[in-house]
Amino acid sequence: MGANNGIEVAAGRALSKEAYDEIVPGLREALVNAQYDVTQQRDFTVLVLLAGMSGSGRSESANRLSEWMDPRYVHLRAPDEPIGLERARPYMWRYWQALPPKGSIGVLLDSWYRAPIVKHASGALSGLALQRISAEIRDFETLLIHEGVLLLKLWFHLEKAAQAERLQKLGASKLTRWRVTDEDRWQLKHYEQFSTAAEKILSETGSPEAPWTIIDGSDEQYREVAVGRLLHQALRRRLDTGTPDASVAPALPERGEKQNPLHELDLNKRLDEADYQPQLEQQQAGLARLTRRKRFRRHSLVVVLEGMDAAGKGSAIRRITYALDVRQYTVVPIAAPSEEERRYPYLWRFWRELPEQGEITIFDRSWYGRVLVERVENLADAADWRRAYEEINEFEQQLIESGTLVVKFWLQISKAEQLKRFRAREKTPFKRFKITPDDWRNRRKWDAYQQA
Amino acid sequence: MGANNGIEVAAGRALSKEAYDEIVPGLREALVNAQYDVTQQRDFTVLVLLAGMSGSGRSESANRLSEWMDPRYVHLRAPDEPIGLERARPYMWRYWQALPPKGSIGVLLDSWYRAPIVKHASGALSGLALQRISAEIRDFETLLIHEGVLLLKLWFHLEKAAQAERLQKLGASKLTRWRVTDEDRWQLKHYEQFSTAAEKILSETGSPEAPWTIIDGSDEQYREVAVGRLLHQALRRRLDTGTPDASVAPALPERGEKQNPLHELDLNKRLDEADYQPQLEQQQAGLARLTRRKRFRRHSLVVVLEGMDAAGKGSAIRRITYALDVRQYTVVPIAAPSEEERRYPYLWRFWRELPEQGEITIFDRSWYGRVLVERVENLADAADWRRAYEEINEFEQQLIESGTLVVKFWLQISKAEQLKRFRAREKTPFKRFKITPDDWRNRRKWDAYQQA
Repeated sequence: MGANNGIEVAAGRALSKEAYDEIVPGLREALVNAQYDVTQQRDFTVLVLLAGMSGSGRSESANRLSEWMDPRYVHLRAPDEPIGLERARPYMWRYWQALPPKGSIGVLLDSWYRAPIVKHASGALSGLALQRISAEIRDFETLLIHEGVLLLKLWFHLEKAAQAERLQKLGASKLTRWRVTDEDRWQLKHYEQFSTAAEKILSETGSPEAPWTIIDGSDEQYREVAVGRLLHQALRRRLDTGTPDASVAPALPERGEKQNPLHELDLNKRLDEADYQPQLEQQQAGLARLTRRKRFRRHSLVVVLEGMDAAGKGSAIRRITYALDVRQYTVVPIAAPSEEERRYPYLWRFWRELPEQGEITIFDRSWYGRVLVERVENLADAADWRRAYEEINEFEQQLIESGTLVVKFWLQISKAEQLKRFRAREKTPFKRFKITPDDWRNRRKWDAYQQA
Repeated sequence: MGANNGIEVAAGRALSKEAYDEIVPGLREALVNAQYDVTQQRDFTVLVLLAGMSGSGRSESANRLSEWMDPRYVHLRAPDEPIGLERARPYMWRYWQALPPKGSIGVLLDSWYRAPIVKHASGALSGLALQRISAEIRDFETLLIHEGVLLLKLWFHLEKAAQAERLQKLGASKLTRWRVTDEDRWQLKHYEQFSTAAEKILSETGSPEAPWTIIDGSDEQYREVAVGRLLHQALRRRLDTGTPDASVAPALPERGEKQNPLHELDLNKRLDEADYQPQLEQQQAGLARLTRRKRFRRHSLVVVLEGMDAAGKGSAIRRITYALDVRQYTVVPIAAPSEEERRYPYLWRFWRELPEQGEITIFDRSWYGRVLVERVENLADAADWRRAYEEINEFEQQLIESGTLVVKFWLQISKAEQLKRFRAREKTPFKRFKITPDDWRNRRKWDAYQQA
């Protein structure tokens, strides 16, 4: 494994049992104290990725970390290959589900690296596809880091001879034979291919921001102490220096007032009531037929409705859902994030609601809140909402690549029309809940919203 | 449909368009105001079940309720038949997942009634099995009501002629044909069987506590106003009179001090270190082999660990998980419920964590907290924790019937041994997090915990 491409190498060494016994109590105490501070502060998530070769002890190390610290705040996860419902969703979906909340330490075994390495090593994934997945992983890790996640990426390395020896030793006794899996045997047989695939993805995904640390997995004592120390150092550094400044905000292309496409819209288009009803029924029938087709079961649909208050998002949604099978769709109204949701990166709550195959999710407001309300109301730093444009594109790209149809609507009305509708709502008793002081407040920021 | 067996009948009537237009604005206002009070109080959940015949307008009514009120607090759900991952879990699992939190109104289409009716009508479910499911449903609804859920059960009835006419009318136009499903056609063809099956389950599950209201589904205006009024009345009654008193606490068999099985235990059993290690390895190897068998993939496993503080639950779990594939198990530590969890019935958070087929969930403390810490600390009313014994038995029964293995351990130590371990923990720096003021407080209530 080369030392280049941002991959930090920790040279492998052995550690005697005596040295280990002497080091561990102090290390545990330091780890527990650091973990205590993390859970008290509750303002960032720690994510430790333990990936590597078969027999290199990454799962033993995962168990050890959970033993050394308070296991209530250690989330040990090993998401498996997609099964059942997950199949239709983007590759990263299950890792979003596995993210632990702020204030806790997540230990992810193999993580998003295992599948591409095994697939490339077995020839099921081309070099080009591996590069594409690497780019996706880079974007995802960058997003996590920007959201304040402390990401520690450890690769457990094992020479071929050491791997053969270890698997042979485990296989020799009836009591430990169960620990050698089919995949372990496969890896040993394809050691070179696996190593090469791993080396490729490691160089593609190692960066100064999210470097890899290589751990020599041949000696148990050395390996465990090395992992414990690395984690402790990383925790202390973050606790002592605070969350790093968000990276420099990406520049936005300045857009002149004239160029705003919303200002170009002709808002006087009308449809006669007489034309409306038959056209609506026809469209609904068409939508009903299409979503009931066998072929739709291989896709899923995400509908996003955004727009100014009182632009008619609610009634548009009712006209859509009228044509849908109630078993098939979910309407997700997006308001300010809940206390729980605030403990995760902002895209997390949208990932949770993604439809499975053959299903439809309609978002009444959406992730665009990041660059609308959060931008206008200064709820997000400029650096945060500016990078959101890129992150949103990347998110939607992943949806599309997984076979999800993404349809987005912006409903625009004029400022005068909004006022008329607000007044009408105030006068209709059963619509009063639709008009709140917030609506009037947002209205005063009309121009800022139009600009955003 | 008979009027006996706790089934309340609302005679079917039609309502003219004019009368409807006159009633609706006032009804909407009343509903919106009541809903507002529900969301402000946030201390109970409303659950409206809309079940009934094909073509009786139950899904139209569901949409109407969502239109008439603030849709952000109306959870419209229509859980489908089990697919994929759900198959292994108890029948009620998906309905537990669909429960809305306190302060919101859930509208459940068909709900837990559809599958048994259709299956019994088509001969796939025996009369005895139908009775068993009815009993399960009764227990579940009783639990919901005891947990303060306002449950409204509406059955949309339609005579055979009216059903035939409605489906025929929808089928006649290209624009509405999509609204007639295969199941609709099947129901019409088997009208008598469906009616009989429905009548059976309705009489089995109608009770003074959770009565059925029958709505005549033949007239749209009448039907919608009837549903709106019933919901409004139910909401107002609850809002004005408050949550009903919990039912009388079931009596507990008085258990003399001598009879406590914990006091009969011989706590001096020891295992030599020399015997321990080989026996542990043998047991771990056995566990590893069994959980990796093909046959295990058709089951799932729930392990519960309870016991006094410092009894060794944590180390027992580590010895178990050592033998398991990390992809296969989850350890769920149970502490005081979070703010979100407190908005649901107490069993909800355990239902959420149930393993799927081939998987293992280890609960580090569990639902027994209801009759331990909540009983001892007076966190639950006597009526609540007393009925919990029955509810827990029912819950575990459902697990077992769905093919889940349930294994429960109580780890007992003597009071003196606990003190020794507490002191040792205080002295070991990396174990200090394991000993908190709570532990000492719980220790002072030793006898109460033993009794519970």
